Amino acid sequence: MNYRIDNLQYCNWSRDIFKINRDAGLSAVHATVVYHEDYDEFLIKLKEWENLFNENSDLIFLGKTFEDIIKAKSENKTAIFFGFQNCSPIEDDINLIEKVHHHGCRFMQLTYNNQSLLATGCYEKHDSGVTNFGREAIKEMNRIGIVIDMSHSGEKSTLDAIDISEKPIAITHANPSFWHSALRNKSEKLLKHLSNSGGILGLSLYAHHLKDGTDCKLDSFCEMVAKTVDIMGVKNIGIGSDLCLNQPNSIVEWMRNGTWTKTKNYGEGSKSKPEFPDQPEWFIDARGFSNLEKGLKKIGFNENEVNDILGNNWFNFYKGIN
Amino acid sequence: MNYRIDNLQYCNWSRDIFKINRDAGLSAVHATVVYHEDYDEFLIKLKEWENLFNENSDLIFLGKTFEDIIKAKSENKTAIFFGFQNCSPIEDDINLIEKVHHHGCRFMQLTYNNQSLLATGCYEKHDSGVTNFGREAIKEMNRIGIVIDMSHSGEKSTLDAIDISEKPIAITHANPSFWHSALRNKSEKLLKHLSNSGGILGLSLYAHHLKDGTDCKLDSFCEMVAKTVDIMGVKNIGIGSDLCLNQPNSIVEWMRNGTWTKTKNYGEGSKSKPEFPDQPEWFIDARGFSNLEKGLKKIGFNENEVNDILGNNWFNFYKGIN
Repeated sequence: MNYRIDNLQYCNWSRDIFKINRDAGLSAVHATVVYHEDYDEFLIKLKEWENLFNENSDLIFLGKTFEDIIKAKSENKTAIFFGFQNCSPIEDDINLIEKVHHHGCRFMQLTYNNQSLLATGCYEKHDSGVTNFGREAIKEMNRIGIVIDMSHSGEKSTLDAIDISEKPIAITHANPSFWHSALRNKSEKLLKHLSNSGGILGLSLYAHHLKDGTDCKLDSFCEMVAKTVDIMGVKNIGIGSDLCLNQPNSIVEWMRNGTWTKTKNYGEGSKSKPEFPDQPEWFIDARGFSNLEKGLKKIGFNENEVNDILGNNWFNFYKGIN
Repeated sequence: MNYRIDNLQYCNWSRDIFKINRDAGLSAVHATVVYHEDYDEFLIKLKEWENLFNENSDLIFLGKTFEDIIKAKSENKTAIFFGFQNCSPIEDDINLIEKVHHHGCRFMQLTYNNQSLLATGCYEKHDSGVTNFGREAIKEMNRIGIVIDMSHSGEKSTLDAIDISEKPIAITHANPSFWHSALRNKSEKLLKHLSNSGGILGLSLYAHHLKDGTDCKLDSFCEMVAKTVDIMGVKNIGIGSDLCLNQPNSIVEWMRNGTWTKTKNYGEGSKSKPEFPDQPEWFIDARGFSNLEKGLKKIGFNENEVNDILGNNWFNFYKGIN
């Protein structure tokens, strides 16, 4: 059985988007539930998701284990797996890790760009690595079954997390920096260490992570995939599109600024281009998976390899979460 | 006019302790209100303080500016200035800085031993310095009038804070490491940088910060003061006793462990000696200020210098807070 999985989306969720994901054949989507929200605010987001599940029960349901991906495939639905892009919902309390897991959380970034209580983000000047609390939190996440996601973390923190975690970690949405140098993209050294430890990289389709941004060509993307496979092997790569469909620009402001600054921060954007960037034309939404399929075959991947990259690798990774 | 000031106490507050502080002639005490509490928990602590102020209005009142120290002296009372030993009450929200100031906060440590969102604590392996949020928070604390306190911070973070802050910062309770090498004590380099920037050091009487611990001799302490004055000058030193009178040992456990670990942490103590250490016999409570006065005179300080060290320097520092 083959599965299509997009292991990172943060859309302005609606029935239309769930239909698109279903039409794209996605059996699982890792959905960002919160950025900088604390525990109470996460609980409020949960209520919004309860409504979405109730109103779209023919299209989606809450995914908890890899078996829900199998179920979704058989029912022509999409299992939604919850994730956090920052560790703010666990606040400063290690006991909240078990509680957020109980509410469905399966992926948690240790940082979002800035320093967190657990590790250093990729936008800080200095990276001191995983903190004292971070070590304890990783141990607890391993025990409970929440994947450590280092997509927005600094290099030292990520290497630390790989070494400290007893389970493989994930970088759910980022690209290699050899292709496009950006604070959010990852070095060859890091990618090798990630794959050697059984970890997985979800390749991003977000314009700021792409060579030539919105104008990035499908061929260029697929060449990058081939080179990344040379570094990491074909079993440690998947897709984490980072699609932010229909989000208003106030959301990208929230992602970048949270409540930590009175001076506006533009993150990957700039003062003259603060908005969400446009998607490349061959991946305007999850239906672009079919373009990826064509592109990957064209560059020389065989059927099995294409299926691995477009979902089976993530499926196998999910098997190891609990 | 001369003032006696103890710029750090965290006692199990009671009428008896307020009497002792009054009898010791303290016109001001910087009282730790919270360690790891968040904003809501801080508000609960405030209610406890409201009761203390109501029930002991003949002994104490809430201090807000240096003028309250003058008022306290004239009324034979002690002005209590609120401080935080961690930045947890502002959570991840820069707007809470103005709110905690409104409720009386005048000192806030950027860290308590571990990494915080603002800077690195002295118990972390690596110190990455003041963070992105930390820079913004320092700017806001400067604007609002909350003193940056780096007592429990790492060296790089402290040097950063001195450089970033437009107002002098404080190390309210610590000693020089040339006298007693401990993670909590401070290097000569740091102390020089602190005094050159107009900052101030509150010397600690907490046994873990003292040479020979509980057995530390008054003469030894006063020799240390003399050497520290050689480094920092006599105008940049005060007392921050770190008295934790009548606290149960559950409190030192809370200070060290907060909610960040499931593995017990012993901080400055050890598994065999986890409890609060005993005070040296010449400083069992604030009445020990009279012993300090004698000791400092004996080591060669003149009357003015003794008064500077035992309170006037802090008084002058308070003048610059707002």
